[in-house]
Amino acid sequence: MSRIEKANIPRPYNVIKNEREYNTNFNVDEMFEFLEGNNSENAAKVLDTYRFLERDLILRNRPDNYDKLSKKEIRKYTFLKVQRLALILEKIVNEQLEAGVPVDKIDFTDYNRITSQYNIYDPQTCITFGIHTMLFYNGVRGNGTKEQYRYWAFETGGIYGKNIYGCFGMTELAHGSNVAGLETTAEYDYKTKQFTINTPHLGATKWWIGGAATSANHCVVYARLIVKGKDYGVKTFIVPIRDTNHRLLPGVSVGDIGAKMGRQGVDNGWIQFSNVTVPKYNLLQKYVKIDDEKEEVINSPMDQLAYGALLDGRSSMVTDSYRTGAKAVTIALRYAVGRRQFGKADNVETNFVSDKSIDKSLKIEKQLIDYPSHQYRLIPLLATVYCISSSSDKLSKRLNAVKSALQEDQLLTDKKFLYRTLNELKEVFVLSASAKATSTWFTANAIDQCRQACGGHGYSAYSSFGETYNDWVVQCTWEGDNTVLSISAGKSIVGHRKAVKNGKPIPSGFNYLASKDTSIESINFTDSTDLLKLFDTVIIKSVDNVLDVLPRYDGNFDKVATELVTISKFNCWRFHLETVLEYAQNANGQTIKPVLAKIINLYGLYQIKENASLFLKYQLLTNSNLNEIDAIIFKDLLPFLRHQIVALTDSFKLSDFFVNSVLGGFDGDFYNKYFDLVNSVNNNSPDYDDSDYQDVILNTLKRSSYKERHNYVSPKE
Amino acid sequence: MSRIEKANIPRPYNVIKNEREYNTNFNVDEMFEFLEGNNSENAAKVLDTYRFLERDLILRNRPDNYDKLSKKEIRKYTFLKVQRLALILEKIVNEQLEAGVPVDKIDFTDYNRITSQYNIYDPQTCITFGIHTMLFYNGVRGNGTKEQYRYWAFETGGIYGKNIYGCFGMTELAHGSNVAGLETTAEYDYKTKQFTINTPHLGATKWWIGGAATSANHCVVYARLIVKGKDYGVKTFIVPIRDTNHRLLPGVSVGDIGAKMGRQGVDNGWIQFSNVTVPKYNLLQKYVKIDDEKEEVINSPMDQLAYGALLDGRSSMVTDSYRTGAKAVTIALRYAVGRRQFGKADNVETNFVSDKSIDKSLKIEKQLIDYPSHQYRLIPLLATVYCISSSSDKLSKRLNAVKSALQEDQLLTDKKFLYRTLNELKEVFVLSASAKATSTWFTANAIDQCRQACGGHGYSAYSSFGETYNDWVVQCTWEGDNTVLSISAGKSIVGHRKAVKNGKPIPSGFNYLASKDTSIESINFTDSTDLLKLFDTVIIKSVDNVLDVLPRYDGNFDKVATELVTISKFNCWRFHLETVLEYAQNANGQTIKPVLAKIINLYGLYQIKENASLFLKYQLLTNSNLNEIDAIIFKDLLPFLRHQIVALTDSFKLSDFFVNSVLGGFDGDFYNKYFDLVNSVNNNSPDYDDSDYQDVILNTLKRSSYKERHNYVSPKE
Repeated sequence: MSRIEKANIPRPYNVIKNEREYNTNFNVDEMFEFLEGNNSENAAKVLDTYRFLERDLILRNRPDNYDKLSKKEIRKYTFLKVQRLALILEKIVNEQLEAGVPVDKIDFTDYNRITSQYNIYDPQTCITFGIHTMLFYNGVRGNGTKEQYRYWAFETGGIYGKNIYGCFGMTELAHGSNVAGLETTAEYDYKTKQFTINTPHLGATKWWIGGAATSANHCVVYARLIVKGKDYGVKTFIVPIRDTNHRLLPGVSVGDIGAKMGRQGVDNGWIQFSNVTVPKYNLLQKYVKIDDEKEEVINSPMDQLAYGALLDGRSSMVTDSYRTGAKAVTIALRYAVGRRQFGKADNVETNFVSDKSIDKSLKIEKQLIDYPSHQYRLIPLLATVYCISSSSDKLSKRLNAVKSALQEDQLLTDKKFLYRTLNELKEVFVLSASAKATSTWFTANAIDQCRQACGGHGYSAYSSFGETYNDWVVQCTWEGDNTVLSISAGKSIVGHRKAVKNGKPIPSGFNYLASKDTSIESINFTDSTDLLKLFDTVIIKSVDNVLDVLPRYDGNFDKVATELVTISKFNCWRFHLETVLEYAQNANGQTIKPVLAKIINLYGLYQIKENASLFLKYQLLTNSNLNEIDAIIFKDLLPFLRHQIVALTDSFKLSDFFVNSVLGGFDGDFYNKYFDLVNSVNNNSPDYDDSDYQDVILNTLKRSSYKERHNYVSPKE
Repeated sequence: MSRIEKANIPRPYNVIKNEREYNTNFNVDEMFEFLEGNNSENAAKVLDTYRFLERDLILRNRPDNYDKLSKKEIRKYTFLKVQRLALILEKIVNEQLEAGVPVDKIDFTDYNRITSQYNIYDPQTCITFGIHTMLFYNGVRGNGTKEQYRYWAFETGGIYGKNIYGCFGMTELAHGSNVAGLETTAEYDYKTKQFTINTPHLGATKWWIGGAATSANHCVVYARLIVKGKDYGVKTFIVPIRDTNHRLLPGVSVGDIGAKMGRQGVDNGWIQFSNVTVPKYNLLQKYVKIDDEKEEVINSPMDQLAYGALLDGRSSMVTDSYRTGAKAVTIALRYAVGRRQFGKADNVETNFVSDKSIDKSLKIEKQLIDYPSHQYRLIPLLATVYCISSSSDKLSKRLNAVKSALQEDQLLTDKKFLYRTLNELKEVFVLSASAKATSTWFTANAIDQCRQACGGHGYSAYSSFGETYNDWVVQCTWEGDNTVLSISAGKSIVGHRKAVKNGKPIPSGFNYLASKDTSIESINFTDSTDLLKLFDTVIIKSVDNVLDVLPRYDGNFDKVATELVTISKFNCWRFHLETVLEYAQNANGQTIKPVLAKIINLYGLYQIKENASLFLKYQLLTNSNLNEIDAIIFKDLLPFLRHQIVALTDSFKLSDFFVNSVLGGFDGDFYNKYFDLVNSVNNNSPDYDDSDYQDVILNTLKRSSYKERHNYVSPKE
């Protein structure tokens, strides 16, 4: 026996084991392949990467991660992991360089896969190095010439964190989303051929700059280019901030901006520049040039592309939404299978879903997962995560294609190619804005709902929900605030619909807005293709409603901002649905197709149910339709999927290392593991060992009486 | 000058000052009186209490609160504050005892006011001592005889934390909401007249027990009473767990359950009992008695009252929802007034809402608060907080009345009085379940929305949103999980409606369910009394719908759990609305009535807009009604309230101590304060001082080349 007990203990691991053994009627490997981009080769690589990561002891958190680390320790351990990632990246890059791959053709796919997956486990390390590899170097590559990219990324070895460690100096204390309104200045002097960088006032202090506080020695600074008193708008400059001994350069002031809601390991800082000079070369010059002879600034008409550094982030945040969402639902669903509460377990003989080893004479409570309300709380979240797996794959493929095209020299010579690329870029820009905002909001909510679904234990740090949530929610704010992005995407969609009405061309991804037949005759609610049509129609109706009411508000889009956010959300929901349907149709595994059909159907009906007001408002559905939908959800889809639920979480192939929660382990033995972990990390001895603290308690309890302690009071008269 | 700057700095404090001076057209003192229960005497006391608390330097957090404290330090500082609260309570109690007040008539109103208000600032200290004063002693008082209460609370001085420090041993590792299913046992032996307390297995380990890990020496243990092998259900026992030297008693095992999402200062622990014996006296015996002569257990028919210990908490959590909600909206709204983003400020001459001191030639961005979408994000949250101020006051008054009645001896002799009291108790039970769940969910969401509305800076620990959220959300889970409570309240409401239909009497608070005319003819959407009728009708329709569809699910309430949650929520929304209308009508201040009317109207319309699907589903509203509602909200209510917004936050009279956020201070000088705080607490020096950490960074940046480090590789062929 593992412990001496006086009675039968709850054995959730038996339940999970039985459900895994008897309930699954599809092939988990096939499902994993589907989830990883419908691609067996990719799935194999993803699995290899999971193994690679979980075996690496440097990338692993300290056991006392939640309990005893000081800020200094957290920062140090984070940077040790950053160092590890740097060495991994260095190897990937060097092997290609040795094989003769030119620097602008280096393939980062393998490395990106590693950080994308490691991000499930340690988002603060990934973003700490991601600021350098992604934001800083996307800035250099996106805004600089090829030569500038070659120099800063490869000649120095900076791309893999050697000699150069970059930070991304965009946000200012008084300016976040409005990049065009930034106030840092870079004044050019034709004589000295230098820029003088200045922070004109406190509000223009660079703020939130990850890496600035301690680790970075270079910064991509977003600053207004001023030449002879004229303001040419915001451009980007490479500004060294520390020397090779890592001492701050004169004129550069830097501080730590301190504690945050999450991600304490990231050394976010502030930076102020006081007459800091950099040579002309340090202006990133793909889209802007300064002609010293003519004393002229030449702005490329394509300088809108200069903000492209953030696009990568948007796409990877949709992938993060899938991966972190998968982690959250895995924990909550496995716990829901093993945890029992109220009621009485269903008949155990006729039902595989029970704990066969348990003494049947005992009064056994019902498994949480057997409550339809609990199923409805969690299974649609799982279904959504499944759908995002496909759309995040598709979005990142589309983004990579545009990024490659933008690197082509053809762009400068072939106008057709240029326009096609620019149109695709615009489309991906709107789609990724809508998808980033909607998906990161979804996952924030999913983590929170999953935590609540685990009751009190969800509040324990060892469930991992607290840290996961605190680390996650910044994704809803950074690199484009979700509300700002959604309003902007919504506006573009309204614009496309207007174009359709005026017979003008629109990007093909928005062709659904041109659908003529917007009347819904007979919907088959069990056919997800029908649901996609319904989604399309509800967007069209919403957009047309915006066009109708706008004049009443003098065309002020901000008065219909709530509607624009809804339109952006549904544009994303339809993208998920369209893509997952396509991926499911092309799925290789035959055992998974019936299960996928149910999952997709549940996703679609869930979105309709949760947004019923829209469908009712535009008379696309009736009350009786809603009752029909409820019947499908509660009588067909949830009961079906409930029996597959352990296998559906297994299909993510997240090992205990990645699940990283006492409640969500593979074997379901959560009571024993929780108890053992709590005692191992808290140094639990019969009495505590802190005499200072003990004194405070004893002084309180053993204080003398009120009267004795107030014996100076004057006698009563 | 306070700093040397090269340009005009943003001066949000001027904007706030001007708005405060020129925009307010009501009396802030009158509004404060309204918010504090419509009672000038109470309002004065609340203000005095705020002053008392903010002047007390022991109750104040360390300046490095967010940054450098270890768990040990946090625990020690928390207990120092507990000690302070204990002395405050001791004084209040002793003065009454000296004046001859009998122990069961001691008035805790003044003390409760102190913790209710201090809870805004330091919820972890309040709950640490609250577990002792409220949960432990409500347990003793509610379940024990008067003599037992006198002994443990007053003879020992325990009530004010002298000699006795109690914890509340209800939850077990494998049992949360299902109290009746707890598995700890207390076996009685007629011979020894003792109980033997046992934790039969790991799953029955008492878990989450606040105070158990280090501070408590007594525990109210919820355990199954077993006598001669017969199980009499769960009763409560006073079990000493530590001796007067604060050493654990034999047979008592205790551990710290470790890190949590928030409230690290609370020493939550686990407890296991191995044959621990306590005398018969330690069974709390108001509702259960053991007759040793007849060898008989006498259960009182009223033992359902034994779980009443949690009622107080439910009511105070509604008050917390008001107070913490007020804090969150104050921060986000003041920041929205001072922060500027995009666009161009409205004409400054014709509009008081601008910064008069600013250089008009500058391109000034628009104040966040001037975006209708931002107004809609935040002002309805403020309106809801205003409404909860009234309903929380009313709920706590009703609860106090029932509690007093339950202490009356008359209860045992006067059957009419008994039934009236029991009926009132049942009504308050359902109402408080619905109000606790709905209001704590509201405030969790409000904190999160307010954080997001502050953009990136909302993620800074110094905005206070992170800690406030992490500390808050456990309110949605503890002392009755919100979903469980809502389903249970929803069920009761359905039951009451059924009773109405069968002509049976129902508690008067649910009389709205008996409303006969449920058809909505012509609603005046600017009349909140009309909105209340609309709320009533939508509840009736929802309940009737549940009664209609239930048979389809074989009467299984869990299949309609989502609907039950909605019904419970609307029952709370209508309670808020009904109560605030009553309080507003009785308000003393005449200047505030027009403002209150707009606030209440906005609250009502906001709930309708956010829950439009319900109103559309039951055909209570049409599409054109919804457009009409939008017009009222965006053309009348929001523009009106926007101009009062600084004064509306001032009316809460939360000083900077209670707001406790760099973004939400009274004077609006957030950029300077944020910058100064960040630098003061982070010991920002030009270079960092941790050589360990520095070494890691330098070792990474200055590593030798890839080739040098791999010189052992075999030569290529």
